Amino acid sequence: MATALTEAGFFQNRQKVWDHYLLPLQKVEDRLKKTLISQSNLIAHIGKHILIGGKRIRPLLAIIAANLNGERNFGEEVILIACAVELIHTTSLLHDDVIDDAVKRRNKDSARIIWGNKASILVGDHLYAQGVSIMESLRDHEMNDVFLEACRLMTEGETLQLSNLRNLNLTEKIYFRIIRYKTAALVSATCRLSAIAAKMETEKQETLAQFGLKLGLAFQIVDDTLDYIGNGQIMGKSIRKDLRNGEMSLPFLHLLSSCGKKEREKFQEAFRTSILSPSVFREILGLMKKYGSIEYSMNKARESVESAKDSLSLYPNSIHRQALLHLADYVIYRDH
Amino acid sequence: MATALTEAGFFQNRQKVWDHYLLPLQKVEDRLKKTLISQSNLIAHIGKHILIGGKRIRPLLAIIAANLNGERNFGEEVILIACAVELIHTTSLLHDDVIDDAVKRRNKDSARIIWGNKASILVGDHLYAQGVSIMESLRDHEMNDVFLEACRLMTEGETLQLSNLRNLNLTEKIYFRIIRYKTAALVSATCRLSAIAAKMETEKQETLAQFGLKLGLAFQIVDDTLDYIGNGQIMGKSIRKDLRNGEMSLPFLHLLSSCGKKEREKFQEAFRTSILSPSVFREILGLMKKYGSIEYSMNKARESVESAKDSLSLYPNSIHRQALLHLADYVIYRDH
Repeated sequence: MATALTEAGFFQNRQKVWDHYLLPLQKVEDRLKKTLISQSNLIAHIGKHILIGGKRIRPLLAIIAANLNGERNFGEEVILIACAVELIHTTSLLHDDVIDDAVKRRNKDSARIIWGNKASILVGDHLYAQGVSIMESLRDHEMNDVFLEACRLMTEGETLQLSNLRNLNLTEKIYFRIIRYKTAALVSATCRLSAIAAKMETEKQETLAQFGLKLGLAFQIVDDTLDYIGNGQIMGKSIRKDLRNGEMSLPFLHLLSSCGKKEREKFQEAFRTSILSPSVFREILGLMKKYGSIEYSMNKARESVESAKDSLSLYPNSIHRQALLHLADYVIYRDH
Repeated sequence: MATALTEAGFFQNRQKVWDHYLLPLQKVEDRLKKTLISQSNLIAHIGKHILIGGKRIRPLLAIIAANLNGERNFGEEVILIACAVELIHTTSLLHDDVIDDAVKRRNKDSARIIWGNKASILVGDHLYAQGVSIMESLRDHEMNDVFLEACRLMTEGETLQLSNLRNLNLTEKIYFRIIRYKTAALVSATCRLSAIAAKMETEKQETLAQFGLKLGLAFQIVDDTLDYIGNGQIMGKSIRKDLRNGEMSLPFLHLLSSCGKKEREKFQEAFRTSILSPSVFREILGLMKKYGSIEYSMNKARESVESAKDSLSLYPNSIHRQALLHLADYVIYRDH
């Protein structure tokens, strides 16, 4: 049932559809700004730096999802869900940049480059506490459970990834568990929280949570693939870094399972000595082309998005359902 | 009213008094262990490493405080409060060690030395989420508010400290705000949470929160003073590091306000060039002796503890009130 937009059609329609949500998105911005008020200038400076220019995919998702039943639901509750989720995501960006020694984020110097690792860690912790507090302000234990479970899974996924750096025996199954935990769990929780806020019946809550899960998986797979084929300028951050950091993401896992024993041994040696020379890296990119590893990964992402979109048939056709389908396509067609 | 124990008397009695709480403290240990169960070995390893050997002052405080009204209250609720608070504290230890480039903690290599900064940050985040989840499991919005406010203040205090590194114009007032936020807020929240759990009337809740606040202030002042005069072996961590890191703590602030203009200018120069040579450091220690800066700081800590102890007169005399007085004295007499 879901219309697969062409890439061009998607970008033509995107702004028109999303304009519908400018008002609630502005409310999100205003509320996020409030979280930066404190005795500490560092919180204001770093918070502003990291919050400005975000794609706001999670807030948008929260807002659209809450309206899927047809009625207009831009109430305070949904705005707060959007903020809480965006703040936890923002903490993970600040901490990830420290962890990855990242230099750029959104085409600007990363916070750690300007204010240092220490400040990035602490302000990350602060925004985390703010996010949890905003969620608690909804006074709903069920929502707190959904939200905190996602927070817990995020760090479980990230540590799981960390313990599997340079692990050439990582299975696709474990890769999918890692990205489900570290990325998809929060996207899924965002959808479920909006469904709860909109007082949807249990089946629809579950459907939206599944939609978010599949969307989140696709989002991470595309992210991991863009790291190999994207344009650093457009993406606004350093790319071609995952493999150098030893991250075993889907394109490389596919290559490992497709290439010959000799090539595998070469990679093993490259990781063992912790040196991934430019020539080995170029060779890897060439082999990915040969074995179709990029296409394989993008297909996995597309499948996940299509399956997510199909599940929305449970909801009446509306401008909101259309917007959600657009958002799902954006995950695939985005270039950053 | 509060008996000021002599140092010797304190250490003689300590074990006997605290033995009374071995059962609930064991329950805390068991529950803390459960938080380390996950798909990720890193969480188990680092969590175990950082949790073992802690002084468990906050859990002990939570347990004793809940019993102050006279009745035996070692219920599940208090155990969970103790765990939640200890987990947030543990996160701050993991993150602080990354922030301070600390090599030792409790006479062992710090987690970041063994598993790296990345793992320390992530497992810290994970334990934080676990702490908040445990608090939420009590299903009490008021408690969540008290707890999350303390979490928020902690990071606000730490960033405030960070922006005031090497600030020779830092006032004692701002120093006290920093330590109130970064340390005393959580100790105070611990006491208030136990008072709420024990269903104490509002006045007694407030009294216990004030007790915790004063105890927390004293704890941090002693910590800051031990950094100058303590024994690194006994303390199990690197000392004489605050000044090198540019931290303006109470003994040094006192020295700054007591010494002459020439000495002040010398410190200014030492910080400006970011070099604090051993000879300047020795000179500073000598001047602290001359101007009584260590004694001044310890007196501030003692005053805070005595004032905390006095406030306990609101409660009936009991083994628990005695234990709390002991705990307060421990803050002063401890050597690590």
